[in-house]
Amino acid sequence: MNRLSLVILGIAAASIARLVFAAGSARAQQASDMNAIKAAHAAFYAALSARDVKAMAAVWARKSHVVVIGPVSKAAAVGYKNAVADYWPRVFARLPELSSAISSIAQTRTNGDMAWVIGTEHVVARTRSGKALNYSAFFTDILEKIGDRWLMVAHHAHRIAR
Amino acid sequence: MNRLSLVILGIAAASIARLVFAAGSARAQQASDMNAIKAAHAAFYAALSARDVKAMAAVWARKSHVVVIGPVSKAAAVGYKNAVADYWPRVFARLPELSSAISSIAQTRTNGDMAWVIGTEHVVARTRSGKALNYSAFFTDILEKIGDRWLMVAHHAHRIAR
Repeated sequence: MNRLSLVILGIAAASIARLVFAAGSARAQQASDMNAIKAAHAAFYAALSARDVKAMAAVWARKSHVVVIGPVSKAAAVGYKNAVADYWPRVFARLPELSSAISSIAQTRTNGDMAWVIGTEHVVARTRSGKALNYSAFFTDILEKIGDRWLMVAHHAHRIAR
Repeated sequence: MNRLSLVILGIAAASIARLVFAAGSARAQQASDMNAIKAAHAAFYAALSARDVKAMAAVWARKSHVVVIGPVSKAAAVGYKNAVADYWPRVFARLPELSSAISSIAQTRTNGDMAWVIGTEHVVARTRSGKALNYSAFFTDILEKIGDRWLMVAHHAHRIAR
């Protein structure tokens, strides 16, 4: 073999090795992404039930495209800085007692750097004026991987019609 | 320059050309994806207002992970074949008159092979028993690119609380 053949053979071998490595590492990445998505999603519900403004701020993407629609929303809150940052403190102020627990997950799906989780949550709360709330709601949550972190970019929840 | 240097130089030049081409083509792809997403989303609402079972079937991904939650759903419809395929004919049978028009889009976002659209729709309908419906609803719709087509994978809509 001459020097040129050796170089070409070397490049071909490196390409094959890279493909094999990429396939294995894509599978590992997918499993690790799914765990990170579930953890990020659980952190959102933990922050909600803890009425923790700081923990809630930590789970959201600081992006102008994030959206929140809650059970009593009259308009969508669009943009982290413009709307979503203030949305949660207002919810926590309105509901001095609040717990929201996931009761069932209909679907968790990821494709590339996006993911969505759809399911049912059970809300038990008390308003500032003392009114007790106790209901099931559907939620659709969307997450995006930004840098190496999965963050919430959309939350849509509504009380299940009776 | 010897033959080996020429081969290495050629490979380097090809790599740079590929990167430059990929950047331009990614931008063009993104713009063309956004148009295709908007068209697929509009086709869903057109099928809804036309009460057209065939047109509605054409906009959905034939996947077990698709989910629909409508304004009067008590449970999420999960899976195309198992639930979503039957969901729409039942809606159309329940509502002999139905029109649903998008009144505003809060956000349309795409990342890779996924996209979501969140907004408000206005529903005007009449039930089989003659009851008139006229209300605004929030929707969160999720689409996925499968092969070269953008298809609906989730629809969550609920009547805006008064």
